[in-house]
Amino acid sequence: MKFSIGIDIGGTNTAIGLVSEEGDILERIAIPTTGEADVNAYTTRLTDIVNRLRNNKVHPEIIGIGIGAPAVNHLTGVIEGATNLPWPSPIPLRKMMEERALLPVSMANDANAAAIGEMTYGVAKSMHDFIYITLGTGVGSGIVCDGRLLSGVRGLAGELGHVVIDPHSKRMCACGRNGCLQTYCSASGIVTTAIELLDGLDDNSSLRDIPSSELSSRDIGEAARKGDKIAIEALRRTGEILGFACAQFAAFSSPEAIILFGGPTRDADLLTKPLIESFQKNALFLYRDSVRILLSNLPADDAAILGAASLPYSIN
Amino acid sequence: MKFSIGIDIGGTNTAIGLVSEEGDILERIAIPTTGEADVNAYTTRLTDIVNRLRNNKVHPEIIGIGIGAPAVNHLTGVIEGATNLPWPSPIPLRKMMEERALLPVSMANDANAAAIGEMTYGVAKSMHDFIYITLGTGVGSGIVCDGRLLSGVRGLAGELGHVVIDPHSKRMCACGRNGCLQTYCSASGIVTTAIELLDGLDDNSSLRDIPSSELSSRDIGEAARKGDKIAIEALRRTGEILGFACAQFAAFSSPEAIILFGGPTRDADLLTKPLIESFQKNALFLYRDSVRILLSNLPADDAAILGAASLPYSIN
Repeated sequence: MKFSIGIDIGGTNTAIGLVSEEGDILERIAIPTTGEADVNAYTTRLTDIVNRLRNNKVHPEIIGIGIGAPAVNHLTGVIEGATNLPWPSPIPLRKMMEERALLPVSMANDANAAAIGEMTYGVAKSMHDFIYITLGTGVGSGIVCDGRLLSGVRGLAGELGHVVIDPHSKRMCACGRNGCLQTYCSASGIVTTAIELLDGLDDNSSLRDIPSSELSSRDIGEAARKGDKIAIEALRRTGEILGFACAQFAAFSSPEAIILFGGPTRDADLLTKPLIESFQKNALFLYRDSVRILLSNLPADDAAILGAASLPYSIN
Repeated sequence: MKFSIGIDIGGTNTAIGLVSEEGDILERIAIPTTGEADVNAYTTRLTDIVNRLRNNKVHPEIIGIGIGAPAVNHLTGVIEGATNLPWPSPIPLRKMMEERALLPVSMANDANAAAIGEMTYGVAKSMHDFIYITLGTGVGSGIVCDGRLLSGVRGLAGELGHVVIDPHSKRMCACGRNGCLQTYCSASGIVTTAIELLDGLDDNSSLRDIPSSELSSRDIGEAARKGDKIAIEALRRTGEILGFACAQFAAFSSPEAIILFGGPTRDADLLTKPLIESFQKNALFLYRDSVRILLSNLPADDAAILGAASLPYSIN
């Protein structure tokens, strides 16, 4: 049986896992990303952990290391301009790891890695054309066409969270523009929608008991599941906007599925049902029946490691 | 030297050309598409012409036939639901031609063929990632990623003319939805914009002498070149909207260039300059410097045959 090592580098923590080709995580280690003096010391520490995992005699054949990280160019394996990592750019991490660990290293940005993970271990297993969208702090995406990750120049393809879906929108995005999909469908986008509804409607809502500066998308999800009208409407509008956006994305790559991942999709029907309705209403007739809207079937806590671990199978 | 035969099937005429691998059209024949009793007779007539061209002893090595047509699935070589062709669907034209002509046949829809033509003979010659957009009766597109035409499920990728760029738009598209890019940037979209301006502004304009039912995008181009303010503003708005749309498309595939083809782009600066300004203003910072906006450098009258003739080099 084959194994790979998946490394998910986040701003706070780095998770390392030994993963079978079936997607079972056999060992899992977490270290603070900022715990070492510099990126050299950090890479050496990662290598020590990788060596510990591969020296485990039970798992001899490790085909490679996959690393998911922010702002990676997966064509070059270099991290550049990752604002939430503590080291100066550019970071030629693939080269650094390959020199130390003497194993092939594949890298991709988090959302792209998650898309490959879904294709390797998850609901996209038999698919060749799909769009993967993560809803979280931001809205990330990975696009697979003909079985391969869309890369584009400098590996910068698939920034669907920054597609402006309404040119008249007043919602400001962190990127400096208005109306990006992310301003509506990220965690904070959902909160903004709920606050607008609380201001504009008179309905009772348990969300009124939470100061708006503390309101989270998780609070909204919980309230919605308990039947809170405002919370339900906030998720409905989020789904409606995401469905409209997915309808536009379909015209680009004609995928067989659009796959969603992330917290807000847990409130399945409350967001997903209006999303599918909106997709059907807004898609060009060619795509109405050919594109399925699906949820990721990977465990939320494992998806990042699985995404990283899948890269040696797909990205060279 | 290698040659291919390009066949461009339009609703009215079919153009057939013998083309060198450098993109020189050595012979060119046109027949009416509707001149034969049925699609069998039409295919036999095409085959006769192909045989005449290949039996010319000066050009021995013909590597294949490429066909550009509406509503083709380039993966299967079948035409399905082409409303402007006189024969019932599905039409397995690739198979029919291969059986008769005994040459490999490649097919693609018109805009996709034109994109491949641009990559084979035109301004995209050294490119691997670009988006090609044709402005004409409609707005067509072909997307090339990593040197290959994006196909998607059923070969339906790249319908960028049907991306809704303003969810509040009242402009109705032939597809039944509102606000498609095509309703702004096709020939009739430009006319609609000019009529709105004529109604809304008091400026003198030579366009006021033309009944609005007879106004064409060509009239608007001519007036604009003569300095007509309303016509110039119509082209400016068209460019502005297309630039906004291109900025969103960039976030999908991160192309090295977006290449424009078609009548309205002849009024180069009047449409292209506001387009580039709008692209720069509306694109995510990642794409502002990495994406070039270019015009096709293929002769307008040859582009369809060249697109068809290029297919044997790229599409199998």
